Amino acid sequence: MRTVLASPPFPVETARVKIELINTGSELLLGRVLNTHQQWLCRRLSDLGYSVDRQVAVPDTGADIQQGVREALGRADLVIVTGGLGPTSDDITRDLIAQLLGKKLILDKAVFAEIKRFFAERKRPMPANNDVQAMVPEGATVLPNPFGTAPGLAIPVSPNPYRPGGPKAWLVMLPGPPRELRPMFDATVRPLVLREFPLAEAFVCRTLRTSGVGESALQERVAPPLAALVAAGLEIGYCARVGQVDVRLIARGPNAAQVVSDAEVVVQRLLGEFVYGFDDDDMAGVIVRLLTSKQQTLALAESCTGGHIANQITNVSGASAVFPGAYVTYSNAAKQSNLGVKAETLAAHGAVSAEVAREMAEGARVRLGADYALAVTGIAGPTGGTREKPVGTVFIALTSATGTEVQQKLNAYEREAFKQVTTQQALEMLRRKLVG
Amino acid sequence: MRTVLASPPFPVETARVKIELINTGSELLLGRVLNTHQQWLCRRLSDLGYSVDRQVAVPDTGADIQQGVREALGRADLVIVTGGLGPTSDDITRDLIAQLLGKKLILDKAVFAEIKRFFAERKRPMPANNDVQAMVPEGATVLPNPFGTAPGLAIPVSPNPYRPGGPKAWLVMLPGPPRELRPMFDATVRPLVLREFPLAEAFVCRTLRTSGVGESALQERVAPPLAALVAAGLEIGYCARVGQVDVRLIARGPNAAQVVSDAEVVVQRLLGEFVYGFDDDDMAGVIVRLLTSKQQTLALAESCTGGHIANQITNVSGASAVFPGAYVTYSNAAKQSNLGVKAETLAAHGAVSAEVAREMAEGARVRLGADYALAVTGIAGPTGGTREKPVGTVFIALTSATGTEVQQKLNAYEREAFKQVTTQQALEMLRRKLVG
Repeated sequence: MRTVLASPPFPVETARVKIELINTGSELLLGRVLNTHQQWLCRRLSDLGYSVDRQVAVPDTGADIQQGVREALGRADLVIVTGGLGPTSDDITRDLIAQLLGKKLILDKAVFAEIKRFFAERKRPMPANNDVQAMVPEGATVLPNPFGTAPGLAIPVSPNPYRPGGPKAWLVMLPGPPRELRPMFDATVRPLVLREFPLAEAFVCRTLRTSGVGESALQERVAPPLAALVAAGLEIGYCARVGQVDVRLIARGPNAAQVVSDAEVVVQRLLGEFVYGFDDDDMAGVIVRLLTSKQQTLALAESCTGGHIANQITNVSGASAVFPGAYVTYSNAAKQSNLGVKAETLAAHGAVSAEVAREMAEGARVRLGADYALAVTGIAGPTGGTREKPVGTVFIALTSATGTEVQQKLNAYEREAFKQVTTQQALEMLRRKLVG
Repeated sequence: MRTVLASPPFPVETARVKIELINTGSELLLGRVLNTHQQWLCRRLSDLGYSVDRQVAVPDTGADIQQGVREALGRADLVIVTGGLGPTSDDITRDLIAQLLGKKLILDKAVFAEIKRFFAERKRPMPANNDVQAMVPEGATVLPNPFGTAPGLAIPVSPNPYRPGGPKAWLVMLPGPPRELRPMFDATVRPLVLREFPLAEAFVCRTLRTSGVGESALQERVAPPLAALVAAGLEIGYCARVGQVDVRLIARGPNAAQVVSDAEVVVQRLLGEFVYGFDDDDMAGVIVRLLTSKQQTLALAESCTGGHIANQITNVSGASAVFPGAYVTYSNAAKQSNLGVKAETLAAHGAVSAEVAREMAEGARVRLGADYALAVTGIAGPTGGTREKPVGTVFIALTSATGTEVQQKLNAYEREAFKQVTTQQALEMLRRKLVG
């Protein structure tokens, strides 16, 4: 049986304004923090119809930040700089950029009043160094920050000294904390981009997300039938991620929507059963959507995934309507007392076995009164493997009113990747049941 | 009371070889995937005593990849390129770099045999396009890939055409999938770096991780007493992350260890009670370590965090010795049946209340026979808030043989940040109890 998902309308994008992103912060280059701004900003811009041409991370030193901004202004129409706007001494981006553009910094009284209000509302004294955040380069637009003290700044660069004869550019500076940067982008940068850089050439991008097929097997199946469309301008991208492969179909120009639509028909015909979603879908979101539309519920019993599946499901807004709860049963005692797994089953087959997975799932389903239950038990490693059951062995059980099925997998990855792959496989097992 | 953690020995690092990192992949610039290579590689190099000077992400197009590599070779001694080595048509990095360096690609028979063996072992047919992965630029060292088919490559660049008169450079190419890249780096790139770029000047970096104090309040307390050490060469970095602030102390040269050690004494004296760990510690790892040393156990009852706390705890290898399990009780029925929360308590106070948090914690502790239990109940949003209990309201209960305490917080962040902040607060509450 082959199930093909109906695909949503294309996000029609348009492009060719040159955009570069500069993430400042020595902690990024020391590997102390993960750079989540890159993905978030790139995706937001791509959803609006733009694409980022280059992203750079530089340390918090004057020379590196100025060199990065100079180079970016030499190529791009829009340069977005993140970080270094806070109140502490390594927050030097504002000063460096004003200097680079030859603009004076002026105390903005409205911004200063906002910062004072921020501290007053939270009944905290305002540390003295916070006033530097109210210094604004002349000619800049202040981007308000409802979730913090450092406002963002948008500076028109015209003439652009680093691209003589080039068009007017914009330099946008955003604060480093994601919970400040994200709402600020949506409220102020998004309208600025749409106003200053209206879309020109059509650009269509469709991502089909697959689960259960390898990257090169996938390409072998779809590439030859897509060759004619590639000649007509289709770009195909393959991206192998943990437990899944994305196929990205891109076209530009007046026929873009038709080219991508034709390509999608081909991919769906050849690989439809593996396609679990589109574009920004993730597996947990697809599961919550399917359960919601069927008004059914899911319970979980997790051993080796340790709450990872429940966490993925509850990251989806609206999960509460379809998810009564989960048992994370790491110990054998918890498997017995919480889920009713029998002592004899544990003794006869071991905690990592098809039989225990089955009893875990059935126990969770009954005890939480759910339509479906998934259970996983396995060896996440790095220790605990045996010759018969090496590290990475996992049993996944799915139960419903019509019975229980169990799959065995070997996911020999490090601990966190093991959890991710196992979660993807368990949810894919349920997805096939739900659409079957 | 003030508790000061004993700090571990310094990771003494040394630096000044120039290193640049280039991440290739259009999916990075479309925001379709998160770039985890940057943090991982930067941290690994920093742990070895090196620091990365710049990181760049470029799309999968010939011009962008070649321009990125040319610019990096113009500045750096070691250039690490990730991605684009796979078998599919957008995997073009190998060809582009060979072309850029004027080197021929030659079929490496040993690599080809390895690829064939990889498929044979897994009893999968070898797709025809896989042979491109056995093409090796002349003079390159092959970096074996035990976890995939695309080997890595290390190419000596001497003379370096993009830095005339400069020293010999190395160009290292690594495959994109993290589960292939990471073991390959440790097995082959690490020894290459240590051999080719022996350490020169001492470089000491200490990160103190704090929880419960704001970024500018923190700087206000430590910056003035550290001024003399800054004059002696100390660099201080502050990094605000979700629910915590890191203080990074760096020094270089012969006195580096002394300068950083003196600075750390000052920070510990002023902020010691907020310091939960050092360098790569995370809160869950600290909690598992503390519980392990005391031979005590922790149970969890999670409502609004939906398994996030359990997932963090079980990401730590060795968690099974201290963590019997967790209840994720999203529905009121699950809170009653799984944890023994009373119907009257739910009716009188609502599911998001101090009283329910207390009963959840006490129920989880008794039912899992643990020394401690943490429970959280709150409103993650985006909907469900009221005037008395706005979105972000959360109650955290900690119970042990000596009684139960409950804290109320307002974490008005988007859903995933809400879970992270709440997890950090709950574990910090337990940490203070464990070290108290």
